[in-house]
Amino acid sequence: MESPARPAPVPTALLYYVAFSQLLGLAVVAMTGTWLGVYRGGIAWESALQFNVHPLCMIIGLVFLQGDALLVYRVFRNEAKRTTKILHGLLHLFAFVIALVGLVAVFDYHRKEGYADLYSLHSWCGILVFVLFFVQWLVGFSFFLFPGASFSLRSRYRPQHVFLGGAIFLLSVGTALLGLKEALLFELGTKYSKFEPEGVLANVLGLLLAAFGAVVLYILTRADWKRPLQAEEQALSMDFKTLTEGDSPSSQ
Amino acid sequence: MESPARPAPVPTALLYYVAFSQLLGLAVVAMTGTWLGVYRGGIAWESALQFNVHPLCMIIGLVFLQGDALLVYRVFRNEAKRTTKILHGLLHLFAFVIALVGLVAVFDYHRKEGYADLYSLHSWCGILVFVLFFVQWLVGFSFFLFPGASFSLRSRYRPQHVFLGGAIFLLSVGTALLGLKEALLFELGTKYSKFEPEGVLANVLGLLLAAFGAVVLYILTRADWKRPLQAEEQALSMDFKTLTEGDSPSSQ
Repeated sequence: MESPARPAPVPTALLYYVAFSQLLGLAVVAMTGTWLGVYRGGIAWESALQFNVHPLCMIIGLVFLQGDALLVYRVFRNEAKRTTKILHGLLHLFAFVIALVGLVAVFDYHRKEGYADLYSLHSWCGILVFVLFFVQWLVGFSFFLFPGASFSLRSRYRPQHVFLGGAIFLLSVGTALLGLKEALLFELGTKYSKFEPEGVLANVLGLLLAAFGAVVLYILTRADWKRPLQAEEQALSMDFKTLTEGDSPSSQ
Repeated sequence: MESPARPAPVPTALLYYVAFSQLLGLAVVAMTGTWLGVYRGGIAWESALQFNVHPLCMIIGLVFLQGDALLVYRVFRNEAKRTTKILHGLLHLFAFVIALVGLVAVFDYHRKEGYADLYSLHSWCGILVFVLFFVQWLVGFSFFLFPGASFSLRSRYRPQHVFLGGAIFLLSVGTALLGLKEALLFELGTKYSKFEPEGVLANVLGLLLAAFGAVVLYILTRADWKRPLQAEEQALSMDFKTLTEGDSPSSQ
């Protein structure tokens, strides 16, 4: 899996796939905005429209930004590892803050309206995503950025971090689909089966969400698109190998 | 990724993970049966209970059996590739037949009750899963079993087949979650927010479903658990390399 250390050109097909993922991601955000604007009265904090802050923030934070945060190692292939890592951590931080606003919005709305909290499968999955995301960020930050774990500990933790990151992203997409379905059934009820425009739009939004998840996953898992080791990392890895005769860490 | 050709022992951790996945998968099937038996009046073909055939068949076919079909290359590491391949294809075939019964059940039930078909996001995702599953099976069968494609075509198609297989499995799990949510909201309505026992049981079932998907995905993606090349394949791959100087196919 480890390529030679000289700057490799970005594979053309990767560029097309990344562009396609961004198109899908932006379409998802735009359609969510359209749905909330056209059929749900728009967005505001101080009214019953506060609920609508929730889906929009979650789609922007936990779907679009989280997906893009996973892609930075594929897109920025020849930049210094540390720069890419900081960007990866920052995008996740933005995603978390936006998702936190979305979380506060729905709890605050429930409180004002006297609705129960955390009874649905959507909410259970959502809280699970939130906790996993937060723990993963904290552990990732302290292992890979500050204070940083030992070289051997990092290379043992890295595959788990990568898998868990992908799994949290997929669970976020799944949770968004559950939430969308819940919002549709609460509002449309039996009208859903009459192919109401709102229902059709939301179904298309759901398919686009699933497609965004699938394309991001495809880019992440294609072995020949993994980030090549840079000269500095290669050297470090060789030194380490000589010192310990252990495994060299693979690039993310 | 290619290991030496002599029979390698099955990694102990892999065995534990596979055992855990089977426990989760059986728990999912058992809880679906319990849910339908205790709260939905059980299962029958010739009555309103016909609907209940649908979730049970889909969980057994498109979740449990499909998941296990993906795991055969990890579990049967030292058996002949062809035997493992036939088992992989057969399990998918069983999964397909069971899912087909589940599909017929719900369409037949809708027809008898005069309900609309294919209006919900669950149904759109379900049809997508079904079509993708069928095409993937046909192409897989004709490329890898009969009549079989050329060696170079196989090795180029294999990574796509593997990715698509994983994606279809994950979409199946997501579609099951959407269906579960739909069934809950149709039946429980506002009682769902009162933490009714049926709602709590179904939420736990949903989490178990997601956990089964995650554990299968973990086993599939762990690089050091991939199936090692067998002696016969190694030899074939070397011959081919000599003949064409192309890439040798990686083991699935």
